[in-house]
Amino acid sequence: MASATQQNVPPSGTRDFLAKDMRIREHAFGVIRNAFERYGFEPLQTPAFERLEVLTGKYGEEGDKLIFKILRRGEHEHTGEADLALRYDLTVPLARVVAGYGSQLPRPYKRYGIAPVWRADRPGKGRFREFFQCDIDQVGSHSPLADAEIVVAISSALRDLDVADFQFLLNSRKALFGLLEASDIPDELGTGVLLSLDKLDKLSPDSVIKELVEQRGLPHDRAESLVNTVSGEDAVDQVRTLLRKTDIGRAGVQEIDDVLTLVEGNLASGSIAFSPQLVRGLNYYTGPIWEVVSPTMPGSIASGGRYDHLIETLGGPDLPACGGSLGLERILLLLEEQMEQRSSLVDVAVTVMGAELATDSFSFASKLRSVGIRTGLYLGSSGKLARQLKWASEQGARYSVIYGPKDQAAGQVTVRDMSNGEQQELPVDRLVDYLAGRINSATD
Amino acid sequence: MASATQQNVPPSGTRDFLAKDMRIREHAFGVIRNAFERYGFEPLQTPAFERLEVLTGKYGEEGDKLIFKILRRGEHEHTGEADLALRYDLTVPLARVVAGYGSQLPRPYKRYGIAPVWRADRPGKGRFREFFQCDIDQVGSHSPLADAEIVVAISSALRDLDVADFQFLLNSRKALFGLLEASDIPDELGTGVLLSLDKLDKLSPDSVIKELVEQRGLPHDRAESLVNTVSGEDAVDQVRTLLRKTDIGRAGVQEIDDVLTLVEGNLASGSIAFSPQLVRGLNYYTGPIWEVVSPTMPGSIASGGRYDHLIETLGGPDLPACGGSLGLERILLLLEEQMEQRSSLVDVAVTVMGAELATDSFSFASKLRSVGIRTGLYLGSSGKLARQLKWASEQGARYSVIYGPKDQAAGQVTVRDMSNGEQQELPVDRLVDYLAGRINSATD
Repeated sequence: MASATQQNVPPSGTRDFLAKDMRIREHAFGVIRNAFERYGFEPLQTPAFERLEVLTGKYGEEGDKLIFKILRRGEHEHTGEADLALRYDLTVPLARVVAGYGSQLPRPYKRYGIAPVWRADRPGKGRFREFFQCDIDQVGSHSPLADAEIVVAISSALRDLDVADFQFLLNSRKALFGLLEASDIPDELGTGVLLSLDKLDKLSPDSVIKELVEQRGLPHDRAESLVNTVSGEDAVDQVRTLLRKTDIGRAGVQEIDDVLTLVEGNLASGSIAFSPQLVRGLNYYTGPIWEVVSPTMPGSIASGGRYDHLIETLGGPDLPACGGSLGLERILLLLEEQMEQRSSLVDVAVTVMGAELATDSFSFASKLRSVGIRTGLYLGSSGKLARQLKWASEQGARYSVIYGPKDQAAGQVTVRDMSNGEQQELPVDRLVDYLAGRINSATD
Repeated sequence: MASATQQNVPPSGTRDFLAKDMRIREHAFGVIRNAFERYGFEPLQTPAFERLEVLTGKYGEEGDKLIFKILRRGEHEHTGEADLALRYDLTVPLARVVAGYGSQLPRPYKRYGIAPVWRADRPGKGRFREFFQCDIDQVGSHSPLADAEIVVAISSALRDLDVADFQFLLNSRKALFGLLEASDIPDELGTGVLLSLDKLDKLSPDSVIKELVEQRGLPHDRAESLVNTVSGEDAVDQVRTLLRKTDIGRAGVQEIDDVLTLVEGNLASGSIAFSPQLVRGLNYYTGPIWEVVSPTMPGSIASGGRYDHLIETLGGPDLPACGGSLGLERILLLLEEQMEQRSSLVDVAVTVMGAELATDSFSFASKLRSVGIRTGLYLGSSGKLARQLKWASEQGARYSVIYGPKDQAAGQVTVRDMSNGEQQELPVDRLVDYLAGRINSATD
């Protein structure tokens, strides 16, 4: 029945998370929350939907098309109009909160958000219509301390998640503008030129030169000189020299060096470097920008930067701001692979060998649970021990409590170590202590 | 600017959760998850929306009107049609998962869900359009052990949440049907009669008798006899006697006594009782039903029961099932009142007394964070100590780290105890140990 199967899958581009996935996700969310709270960021959770006008016009023409809109209700349903829309990111809701709560918020307001967002993108491998974003941002501070704090907080979260071997690529929007100015590139070509330079991590220098000439209209010699400057072996020195020529270039170098100085000694050595090629696609950045890359994953696993006027553009007050975002779904995929070992649902499984023994078995399970031991109780209808032990094994139990008529008559239980099948008879009143000792010592 | 304010509030019936609310909510969710996992329930999270046809027709005519529907996208947007809809409860998604994953799930499948649902109800005091539900259910077991397990798990969660003084009211759908049969009430009047009896907790016996006569069409003497039987002082004995007269009545008494026997000794003494008046509005229940009431709150704070054919009605396979639901939003309101004390955002606040001292201050904050101390760093522009200490106090910091030019020259920091203003000068390299000792010992 293909149609029945079709009915029972989640909507296209969304996922059901069963126990194993949920354990990984909850673990990761907890680790990240803990890291961000150490840095004084506070949690914020906004509704799943916003009034439609809060979202429209904020994500460009293409983005607007991907917003899930909610139909008006009741007598208005027939109009086919929408009045609400599902959250598309965590930044527009942040702008609304900053605008709405004003002085009730600490200044700067440092918040983190870990929450699903929804985009009606064409679903594909690793691309979902419901996915979690994980953002930290501060609104209100101009200080490079704020930029550096975001970088170190993101680094701490990645380290706490056991993501091995990652590196921060750092640049500055001001440095990029200084580079354009020093290379005599007309203002109106600037954005296009930067978008082409951004492809140097994927395309060959020659391909990028070709694109700069053919698509962006740069003379060949100027395109070649620009690409060589930012992608050559001594790119950092060459670009630094160029940037000294203009005010905006010098300001860019200064903000890069401010961040490098602050984070030095607080990140693993060599894990952050000035990367003149880094552009970041979004054009709302105004200051330092950065990405985190790892040899274990393609693309970036985190990114961020300073965006001093975005909050105003999004409907909030004009406040300086910077932030960062973890590529949570990618990182979760990596963690899933690392945590492939079979997860256990319970520590102890309690058998029920017949209705007249059920009350005692139920009581054993309750007592074990009351001291914090995750305990399963056999709820099936088979009275066969072999069947019940198979269930215990499927649950991942480390010990089974067997309690048959003979045990009842003797006032005892039989505890079976599921790893080796060894059995131990115990007086009923010793059961909790016996298992608590074994399970807690193994957890320590 | 009233319109600007209007723009910045969340949509009608929804809420923003800022730091203080989030702390309470995350704490409660963690406590509940932990309780349910001890009982071997596993987490499940489904998407925020389902295909529209999965939800429609499942909640009755009134319920259908309250479903938030999502407009089709792209070229189909102009049709004004919906193809998706926001989750209305956690039970229909559970039925879909049970139908879709079949034998991949443990049998019985014991899951918990803590997640928002959306209903386009008229918003009001304590009634929201986005609110969290918190459900545990098992699908697959006929055993009264399963019913008892749900009751004890809900009780554990309430106890762990420090909800004082709650009591389970227990009845059985079979007992209610037995009562109708023994009272010679025609089948076609049964549902209406039960709905009227359900009001005995709010209305006087006389009002209910009046309703039974006038609205349900019962002869006066029969209405009076029925109400007196279930609401008199010796109601439990009277009803037990009546129920012995019919097969279904005896089955009802049996399942009530099964649950009472199993939970006895595993709940606080006297915290569960057979309550012949309890009906529960929803008509899908088939076996034991229960509600939890508390003198600290009006209405019920948890409820549940056995619903052996609901999963099939909702599109799943025909499997026995029972479950329970915590009135999470009500309980959270109660916890909020309990936790009114001012919450602290950071343990330690680090001052920044000028740009040339910023690198050292940043490094102190990083080192404190790396040992797990929640640390704030001053990101504002004031160089005045009084202003920075005011900020530290607003953040709820217990200690401030003051580091001025004199401290730098001497290789020291000054630690201020914010509770009494006492200050202590320390060599820079003793800072972390000094504060870690104080903060951890206070936490223990």
